[in-house]
Amino acid sequence: MTDVINLASDNVAGAAPQILAAIARAGDGRARSYGHDDVTRRIEARLSEVFERRVAAFPVATGTAANALALATFTPPYGAVLCHREAHIAVDECGAPEFYTHGAKLILAEGDHGKLTPATLEAAFPEGWRGDVHRSQPAMLSLSQATESGTVYTPAEVAALTDAARHHGLAVHMDGSRFANALAGQMGAGQGCSPAELTWKAGIDVLSFGGTKNGCVMAEAVVFFDPVKAADFALRRKRAGHLLSKMRFVSAQLEAYLADDLWLGLAANANARARQLAEGLQALPGVALEHPVEANEVFVRLPAALAAGLQREGVIAAHWEGEVWRFVGAFDTTAETIETVLQRARSCVAPDAVAAAG
Amino acid sequence: MTDVINLASDNVAGAAPQILAAIARAGDGRARSYGHDDVTRRIEARLSEVFERRVAAFPVATGTAANALALATFTPPYGAVLCHREAHIAVDECGAPEFYTHGAKLILAEGDHGKLTPATLEAAFPEGWRGDVHRSQPAMLSLSQATESGTVYTPAEVAALTDAARHHGLAVHMDGSRFANALAGQMGAGQGCSPAELTWKAGIDVLSFGGTKNGCVMAEAVVFFDPVKAADFALRRKRAGHLLSKMRFVSAQLEAYLADDLWLGLAANANARARQLAEGLQALPGVALEHPVEANEVFVRLPAALAAGLQREGVIAAHWEGEVWRFVGAFDTTAETIETVLQRARSCVAPDAVAAAG
Amino acid sequence: MTDVINLASDNVAGAAPQILAAIARAGDGRARSYGHDDVTRRIEARLSEVFERRVAAFPVATGTAANALALATFTPPYGAVLCHREAHIAVDECGAPEFYTHGAKLILAEGDHGKLTPATLEAAFPEGWRGDVHRSQPAMLSLSQATESGTVYTPAEVAALTDAARHHGLAVHMDGSRFANALAGQMGAGQGCSPAELTWKAGIDVLSFGGTKNGCVMAEAVVFFDPVKAADFALRRKRAGHLLSKMRFVSAQLEAYLADDLWLGLAANANARARQLAEGLQALPGVALEHPVEANEVFVRLPAALAAGLQREGVIAAHWEGEVWRFVGAFDTTAETIETVLQRARSCVAPDAVAAAG
Amino acid sequence: MTDVINLASDNVAGAAPQILAAIARAGDGRARSYGHDDVTRRIEARLSEVFERRVAAFPVATGTAANALALATFTPPYGAVLCHREAHIAVDECGAPEFYTHGAKLILAEGDHGKLTPATLEAAFPEGWRGDVHRSQPAMLSLSQATESGTVYTPAEVAALTDAARHHGLAVHMDGSRFANALAGQMGAGQGCSPAELTWKAGIDVLSFGGTKNGCVMAEAVVFFDPVKAADFALRRKRAGHLLSKMRFVSAQLEAYLADDLWLGLAANANARARQLAEGLQALPGVALEHPVEANEVFVRLPAALAAGLQREGVIAAHWEGEVWRFVGAFDTTAETIETVLQRARSCVAPDAVAAAG
Repeated sequence: MTDVINLASDNVAGAAPQILAAIARAGDGRARSYGHDDVTRRIEARLSEVFERRVAAFPVATGTAANALALATFTPPYGAVLCHREAHIAVDECGAPEFYTHGAKLILAEGDHGKLTPATLEAAFPEGWRGDVHRSQPAMLSLSQATESGTVYTPAEVAALTDAARHHGLAVHMDGSRFANALAGQMGAGQGCSPAELTWKAGIDVLSFGGTKNGCVMAEAVVFFDPVKAADFALRRKRAGHLLSKMRFVSAQLEAYLADDLWLGLAANANARARQLAEGLQALPGVALEHPVEANEVFVRLPAALAAGLQREGVIAAHWEGEVWRFVGAFDTTAETIETVLQRARSCVAPDAVAAAG
Repeated sequence: MTDVINLASDNVAGAAPQILAAIARAGDGRARSYGHDDVTRRIEARLSEVFERRVAAFPVATGTAANALALATFTPPYGAVLCHREAHIAVDECGAPEFYTHGAKLILAEGDHGKLTPATLEAAFPEGWRGDVHRSQPAMLSLSQATESGTVYTPAEVAALTDAARHHGLAVHMDGSRFANALAGQMGAGQGCSPAELTWKAGIDVLSFGGTKNGCVMAEAVVFFDPVKAADFALRRKRAGHLLSKMRFVSAQLEAYLADDLWLGLAANANARARQLAEGLQALPGVALEHPVEANEVFVRLPAALAAGLQREGVIAAHWEGEVWRFVGAFDTTAETIETVLQRARSCVAPDAVAAAG
Repeated sequence: MTDVINLASDNVAGAAPQILAAIARAGDGRARSYGHDDVTRRIEARLSEVFERRVAAFPVATGTAANALALATFTPPYGAVLCHREAHIAVDECGAPEFYTHGAKLILAEGDHGKLTPATLEAAFPEGWRGDVHRSQPAMLSLSQATESGTVYTPAEVAALTDAARHHGLAVHMDGSRFANALAGQMGAGQGCSPAELTWKAGIDVLSFGGTKNGCVMAEAVVFFDPVKAADFALRRKRAGHLLSKMRFVSAQLEAYLADDLWLGLAANANARARQLAEGLQALPGVALEHPVEANEVFVRLPAALAAGLQREGVIAAHWEGEVWRFVGAFDTTAETIETVLQRARSCVAPDAVAAAG
Repeated sequence: MTDVINLASDNVAGAAPQILAAIARAGDGRARSYGHDDVTRRIEARLSEVFERRVAAFPVATGTAANALALATFTPPYGAVLCHREAHIAVDECGAPEFYTHGAKLILAEGDHGKLTPATLEAAFPEGWRGDVHRSQPAMLSLSQATESGTVYTPAEVAALTDAARHHGLAVHMDGSRFANALAGQMGAGQGCSPAELTWKAGIDVLSFGGTKNGCVMAEAVVFFDPVKAADFALRRKRAGHLLSKMRFVSAQLEAYLADDLWLGLAANANARARQLAEGLQALPGVALEHPVEANEVFVRLPAALAAGLQREGVIAAHWEGEVWRFVGAFDTTAETIETVLQRARSCVAPDAVAAAG
C-alpha cells in the first residue's frame, strides 16, 4: 500500500527535535510562574537582538491570540482595521479580532495574489470618513507576511504601504504566522533582507511572530517595535487567558527556535520544498500556478483527473476553490518526499496511469 | 550555602516525566490540525470513562481560558455569576469572566474557609431579583474545588449547593484547577469518592478540569456533563484564540495524565506533602492553621520571627495577608524536602536559633 | 433674499403637530415609570392590530438602537449578519451592530439599487461555511425597507429572500426606518399591500419600525412577530440605556402616529413630493435618476452647473458621490416647496435648454 | 373615593410646562440633524456658563446611557470602577457599565447613608493591586450625588474623595441624576455652593447631569470638565445608538431647564416637599428616618400598620426593604399634596383610625 503524504498544511507537521528538547529541559527545577521566569526574560532580549532594536515581546500559544491581541492594542472598539479580503484575521479566526477589539470592524480590500497596495488603501477610506461620527474610525492596517496566497511583500512594498497607512493615521500590524518563510523567501530570492528591514525599518508597529507553523509545538510572540505602545498588553493577554502559568515552556521553544538561526534554516527547507514541488508540477500538462511561490505554499490549478489521481495515490493537499489546490512545505518535509509526490503526479498523467493505478 | 526551596505555588514546578515523554511522542508523524487528530478524539472518550458518562470535553492551555469559556457558555451578557469573594475567577483573572461573557457580573459572596453554603446563595439573590429588568439576571454558580483556601467540598456539600442553585435557575460550574487534589483529598479522608460523585452526580454542569498545576506543561479540559450544552463551545474557543493548531500536543498531555491514574497519584503526593508540612508546622509555638488542610495547600499563621527566619533559610512561601502564608505541595515535592523545611523552621524557633543565625 | 429649502434628509424636519400634542398630553398625571405605564401597554396592542398578529413591541428612541438591539437578539457574538454593502447598519452606525452583538461580523453583499437578491445570499455563504469553527456562523439577514437607495422590496421579493435565508438557517431583520414610506410606496404603486404582507407574511422575524423620520420627535419600535423570540429583549434594552424612565413620552408618539392612519398619510405625502421632484428634475437636460423613486428619496445625477446653481439658490441636497445627489421628501414637505425647487432648478439651466426640454 | 397619591419616585411625574413648551417650539423649521443644530450648540455654551468653565457637553436621553458612556470614556475593559454597594450603576442598570466598558469590573464598597469615604477607598485597592496583571486595574471612582440614600456629599467631602482617588490614579465620575436636588440641598442647608464648587472645583472629571427626574421629558447631559478627555465620546455615543437624529428636541429641554434657574427652582420645591414629609412623618409614633433627608428622597421606617394604612389610603411609596419605605418629592409635588399625605398618615395612627377604616 502507498504511504500517505500530507501536504495540506504546515500545521499537520509535528515539532522540530530541538524544540522538543528545549521543552524537556525547561521542566528542570523551580521557576517563577506567569512569565516571571528567566527563560521568558531572555526571550525579549533575544528578539531585541534579532530585530536590532529594543522590542517588547510577549509569548503566546496561538497565532489567533497573537493577532487579536496585537490588533486590540491599537484599535478602539469604534475603530476599523483594513486587511485583505482573504486575510487570516478576516476569514479564519471566527471573529477573534472583533472579540478582542470589542467590536471593531474589519474593512476588506481586494488585491492580486493576496497583496494590498497603497492604491487599495486610498480607496478604502475615502475622504470624509475620518471624523465622521457615523463611521468606525480607521485605526489600523494589517498585512499578512507571507500572504494568504503564499506571496511575500518586499521591504519596499511594506514601506510603501506603511507610508500610506501613516498618512491615514493607521498603525500597522504584520501577521507573521509564516514570517520565517517570508524572510527566508526574500533571502532566497537573492534579496538581502533582515528581520529589521522587513518590519520596523519598513514601518511595521507590531508583529505576530510565528513559530508554531515552522517547527514549534505552540509558540508565537507578539513583538512591539515601540515598547511604549505595549503598555497594556500584559493585562489584555491575562484577561484573555493567554498568560500561561508555566510560561517558560513556551519561551523555551522560542529560545531554541531563535538559537543558531534554527528558525531560518527550517523555513528555508520548507520554502525549498515548495519551490521543488511547484517546478515539478508546472512541468505537467494542464497545471498552472495560481500565485507566485515565494514562501512555503504552492497554490496550483490541477486538472480534475490529476487532482483525483493524487488523492488516490495518497497525496493530501487542501482543496482551495474550484480547481485550485494548496500544497505546503513544512520545516521537516524532505526532498525525497516531494520527489515521491512528483513521481505519483507524473504517474497520474502518464498514458498508462489509469491502468497502473488500477 | 542553603538550597532554596520554593513552595509558593504548584505553578513553580516543572512537569512530570510521563507528561514530557507524551509531548515528545506526540510529534511523531503527520496529524490533522485544530483538534481533528486522533489523540484529541481519544481524550473525550477517556474522560467519558473517567466520569462514567458521555461527556463533551475540550482541551485548552490555561485554567483562565477554561473557566472563562465555561462561564460564557452558560451566562448571557446580562447575566450574573455567583462565586466566593476570593474565587480565582473574581480576583486572579483580570476580568476574564467579564471579557468572555461580554460583561456579565460576578456577585461575590462570603463564606468561611473559601466555601459557599446554600444560605449564602439564598442571600445573594433576594426575591424579586429574577425578572427585574434593572438587574443582571442570575445565571450561574461557580465553585472552586479545591477552594482558594485549600479546603474541599464533600459531594454532599456540592449537592446541597447545586440544589439551591437549581432552585434559582442557575447552572453550576466547578473550577477544578486543583480538581485532582480535591478528589485525592476526599479519598485520603477515607471518604470513597469518584470523579462522577464529585461532579455531575452532585449536580455540576461544567468542570474546568485542571492538569497544569498537577504535573502537566499546559493542559486543562472543559468538561460538559451534558454534551448538548456544549453546542457552541468550539466556536467560542476558536474566536478566543484557544484552539491550538497542533492540539495533539495538549491532548497528549491529558492522555498521559489520565493513564494509569497518574493524575491521582501525583495529587496524592502533593496532598501528603501539604499534610506533612501542616503537621510539622503546627507543632511549633505560635503557629496556627488558617484553614483545614484538605488538599495540597497550607494556609498558616506564622509568628513574624519564624516567617523571617524561613525566608532567611531559603524557604519561599507566598505571603497571603497579615501573618498568613501559603505553602503548596506539588506533584513532585518529596517528603525529604518537607522534612528539610521543617528542620529549618524548627531551627528558627530553637532557643539558640537567633544566635546561630547571627 | 431667497429662502433656504433643505431637502437633504427627512431628519431635518421637525415633528407633526399631532405628535407634539401627544407628547404634551402624555405629561398629565402620574404614571408608572420604565414602560409600566398604560400608554406603553396600549402600543403593543395597537401594533398587534396594525400587523394583524400578536406581536411583542418595544419602543426605543433611535433607529440605531432599534437595529442593533434587534440584531443582537438573534445573532450570537460568533455570528454573522448578511446585509447590503450600503446598509445603514454597515456604514452609518459607527459599529453599533458589532457593539450590541459583542463582535458579530457583518458580511457585505452587492446588489443593484440597494437591493439584495436570493442569488447574492447564496454567494455570500458558500458551502462548508456553516459548522466551520474558523468562520463566524451565519445568523441573520438584514434588509432595509425602503432601501438605502430609496427603492422598495415587494412582498414577493421579501419572501424570496426570506426563503433563501431560512434555507441557510438565518433569521431575518427588516430595518424599517422608512417602513411607512416603503408601505405607502407599495400602495402608491397600485399594489395592495398591508403591513403584515410586507413583513411577517413575507417571512420577516423582527422589524425596526421607524417613526422619527416620518414626523415623530424620537420614536421607533422593535417589533417581534414571534413574541417568544423577544424573551431577553427587555434586558438587552435596559443594559444599553434604552429603557426610558418616562417611556410614556415615546409611546404616546407612537400611539398618535398610528392613530387614524396618520403614519401612512404622512408617508404618502413625503413619497408624493419625491415623485413630484423626480419628475420635474428629469425633465431637465443632463439629469438622470440614479435609482427608481419608490419611496421618499430621490437619488439623481445632476450636471455640475445645475448642482452648483441649486446650492446658490438655497436648495440643500445631500451630496452622495460623484455627480449623485440625494433629495428627500419629508412628512410636511409641501407641493409648493417642491414646485419652488423645480423653478429654481429650471432657472439654473439656460433659457433655451428649458424650452428644449419643455 | 380617595385620590391616589404616588410618591414612589420622581420618575412617575410628567414634565414641567416650560419643558413641554420648549419641545413644541423646537419643531419649528428645518435644522441640521444628529446634533449639528443651533440649540445643541448653545447647550454646551450654556453649561459652560453654569459651571464657570469651558466644558464639553453631550445630551443623551437616559441616565443609564449618561453613566455608562461616562464610565466607558475613562475605564478600559481591564479596568475597575469603585462605587458604593447601592450605587445605581451597580444595582439598577442591568450591567450597563459592564456593557459599555466592555467588561470592566465594579468594585463595591460599603458606606453609611449611601456615602463613600476616603477610608473605604483606601481599603478597596490594597497595595500591590495596581500593576498586578491578575487584577482588573483601578480606573475610576463613581459617586452618586445625591446618593442612593437621599443624602448629599458636601464639596469638602467630594474633594476629600477625589484627592484619595487621584492618589490611586483614578478619574472621578459623578452620577448626578439628582444633581439639581443635591445642589439645591446644599444651598438649602445654608451652605453657599455652586455647580462648579460641587463638581470640578472639588475634583470631579465627568458628570452625568440629570434633567429627566427633575421635570424634563428625557434629557440628560454628560459634562466633561476637561474637554480633551471627551475626544472619543461622540463616537461611543453614536455606536451605542444614543445620538438622536433630531437632537434639538433633547437640547431644547436642557435649554429650558437651565433658563432662569428653572432647574434649581424645581429641585428646591422637590426638596422642600421631602423635608415637609419627613418632618410630618417623624412626629408619628414608631416612625424613624433611615437616612438624613438632604435632597428630595425620604427613607423612613414605618410601623407595619402605618405602612398598610397608607397603602389603603391610596398613598403609594416604594417598599425598600424590611420596614423601610421611600417617598420622593417631585418638581411639581405641592405642599397641599404632602399635607394630605400627612393627614392620611395621622388618621392611620389615630386611636379610632382602624375602626373608621373598617
